Amino acid sequence: MTTTDHANALTAGALFQRLRDGVARTRGDLVADTGLGRAAVAARVDALLAAGLLVPAGAASSTGGRPPQVVRFDAHAGATLALDFGARHATIGLADLSGEPIATVSRELDIAEGPETCLRLALDQARELLRDSRAELFGVGVGVPGPVEHSTGRPVNPPIMPGWDGFDIPGAVREELDGEVQVDNDVNILAIGEHALRGGAVDDLVYVKVATGIGAGIISGGLLQRGALGSAGDLGHIHVRLPESPLVAPGDERDLEAVASGTAVAAALRERGTPAHSNADVVRLIQAGDADAITLTREAGRVLGEALAIVVNLMNPSMIVIGGSLGRVADHLIAGAREVVYRRSIPLATQHLRIEPSRGGVTAGVRGAATMALQAALSPAAVDRRLAAQG
Amino acid sequence: MTTTDHANALTAGALFQRLRDGVARTRGDLVADTGLGRAAVAARVDALLAAGLLVPAGAASSTGGRPPQVVRFDAHAGATLALDFGARHATIGLADLSGEPIATVSRELDIAEGPETCLRLALDQARELLRDSRAELFGVGVGVPGPVEHSTGRPVNPPIMPGWDGFDIPGAVREELDGEVQVDNDVNILAIGEHALRGGAVDDLVYVKVATGIGAGIISGGLLQRGALGSAGDLGHIHVRLPESPLVAPGDERDLEAVASGTAVAAALRERGTPAHSNADVVRLIQAGDADAITLTREAGRVLGEALAIVVNLMNPSMIVIGGSLGRVADHLIAGAREVVYRRSIPLATQHLRIEPSRGGVTAGVRGAATMALQAALSPAAVDRRLAAQG
Repeated sequence: MTTTDHANALTAGALFQRLRDGVARTRGDLVADTGLGRAAVAARVDALLAAGLLVPAGAASSTGGRPPQVVRFDAHAGATLALDFGARHATIGLADLSGEPIATVSRELDIAEGPETCLRLALDQARELLRDSRAELFGVGVGVPGPVEHSTGRPVNPPIMPGWDGFDIPGAVREELDGEVQVDNDVNILAIGEHALRGGAVDDLVYVKVATGIGAGIISGGLLQRGALGSAGDLGHIHVRLPESPLVAPGDERDLEAVASGTAVAAALRERGTPAHSNADVVRLIQAGDADAITLTREAGRVLGEALAIVVNLMNPSMIVIGGSLGRVADHLIAGAREVVYRRSIPLATQHLRIEPSRGGVTAGVRGAATMALQAALSPAAVDRRLAAQG
Repeated sequence: MTTTDHANALTAGALFQRLRDGVARTRGDLVADTGLGRAAVAARVDALLAAGLLVPAGAASSTGGRPPQVVRFDAHAGATLALDFGARHATIGLADLSGEPIATVSRELDIAEGPETCLRLALDQARELLRDSRAELFGVGVGVPGPVEHSTGRPVNPPIMPGWDGFDIPGAVREELDGEVQVDNDVNILAIGEHALRGGAVDDLVYVKVATGIGAGIISGGLLQRGALGSAGDLGHIHVRLPESPLVAPGDERDLEAVASGTAVAAALRERGTPAHSNADVVRLIQAGDADAITLTREAGRVLGEALAIVVNLMNPSMIVIGGSLGRVADHLIAGAREVVYRRSIPLATQHLRIEPSRGGVTAGVRGAATMALQAALSPAAVDRRLAAQG
């Protein structure tokens, strides 16, 4: 083995990962950045240019002589498709190869109508988006509102998805579309989307969705943690020490989401004579300044804080993001949660901890599903396979 | 880019990872296993043979013609050093390149005497072990009984290690020995050791140390999870819903380790008039069949179970391992813990969950520290650098 062989260590697919941030670089930058030889960098850049994954991006400034040419990742060299299913609607989106949503369409549907009906509707919509864009499809990301075995893409006993248990979602999608298919639950996808949106600056991030239920997506060391069977992040069913609160009866034995979800806040409001039947009602009341709604949501935040303090001690994230339909009034949840987290967790774990509302907005699910698809479709191995096939 | 270039995708260092299991393989096996070309496999195997990392291991059986030669990883091509510090003793061990302990020596010391004194003692012992073995030192792994910033190897506000806060352990070790130095807290190292001992068959494993305190090392997807600042796994300071129990006063607000540790069980025994002043006393009483000690340890297991149910819902491990000085009577802890975990956690998360005593034994810390050192010293990049340096 010679040093030349060592210089070949980084494949084109691996080199390409350095360019996915979209920053334009000279070949010299890449030599300095990777330790690869000039000839090896040149061969890899040429192959990536030929495949359309990189494009020339003009000349760098020079201190004399012919200015060096720069290249950058062409995020428009292809497209990714996102199918983001909720209980009552689906958002179908097309994203570029950086995961940035280009076009999204929302359709009402009932997830309980089963996989064939729901997927047909979503795929019809997807084909329209693809026809308009004419971009090559690199991958498909699918999010569903229930537990999924990520390795096979099949839902596992999903409580609100009758007919979907064990259904081969990737197989059904591949019958209609080219490209690899990745499937996960909605909260994991929101976590991936939030991580991507923050530019990878926060590698230990816990995304908490507070809506009808409560769930979490855990990103640790930049990677989503799915656990042995894919059920990691089930924050809603943990039992925490319940503080005294209007949401909690003495001796209460319920799990977190029975006490701190939007559903729980709405029920407590109804007990006080305020008509609140949905998360949207709770959000509207808070936005209108209803004192009970604000107080109860802050109480829900305190109970949530008991759970988050445990997450902080176990996982040591640097950021907790609050999203979901109650994420729109996250400030009240966060105020309650902060009180408890900073009291309960050890100082080393809370020293640099931030608790913030989600920044994902309405395209969060599309961005997350597209990013998940790209993690597979633009991996070093996948890019190397693509280049080899073009050979 | 051509298919030839693609075939060069896997470096010698990466190919070497496939052989670290110690199984003997032919070059043809490696071609089939990796997709590399015959010539590329041959060049890489030659380089690894020349470096002594692989050795010829005879001939495979053949269906005719000259039988193909097999090669295997030579775990005796070098050594790893482990310095495993506890509060009152240190175990210094030499391991082979598979992390298997070859020689270990335990010495009494007081960690509170500070880093210079403790490291001098350990390093003197280490040099003796190295002199006897005459093997090349590949790396050093250090475990300490307190929080560590893994990236720098410096302890961070360690409660029982006066003088060690911020001390540059890797720098001090490198003044005396060659090789890269990795440092982590004792529980993370026990988790790494347990994972290695089980041959990597269990990639989502939580190691729980129950002794004077309670801590956990979390392995997820085969990787130790350290979190943003290295404080992940702090199970002992979480607040759980405390069940009614002889260990818990009504309205009790203490954290897990104040209620379920060896210290807590010993204190409850003293309240009942049984002289128990240490974890060792508790273990002795249980082994002698003391009914109170058994009942209280099982109660501690139930409280621990409340915390483990949360770990299971959040992380979805496939195995929880109970170690530490109370791990020697783990059956009683586990019996209590199981009752609660299987009741509290969702079925998908407990379906294939095993809760078992640690198999690590007295060399667990040495195996873990050596394995941690080897994760760095035999990484693909480190092996490629080693081969390049040999030219």
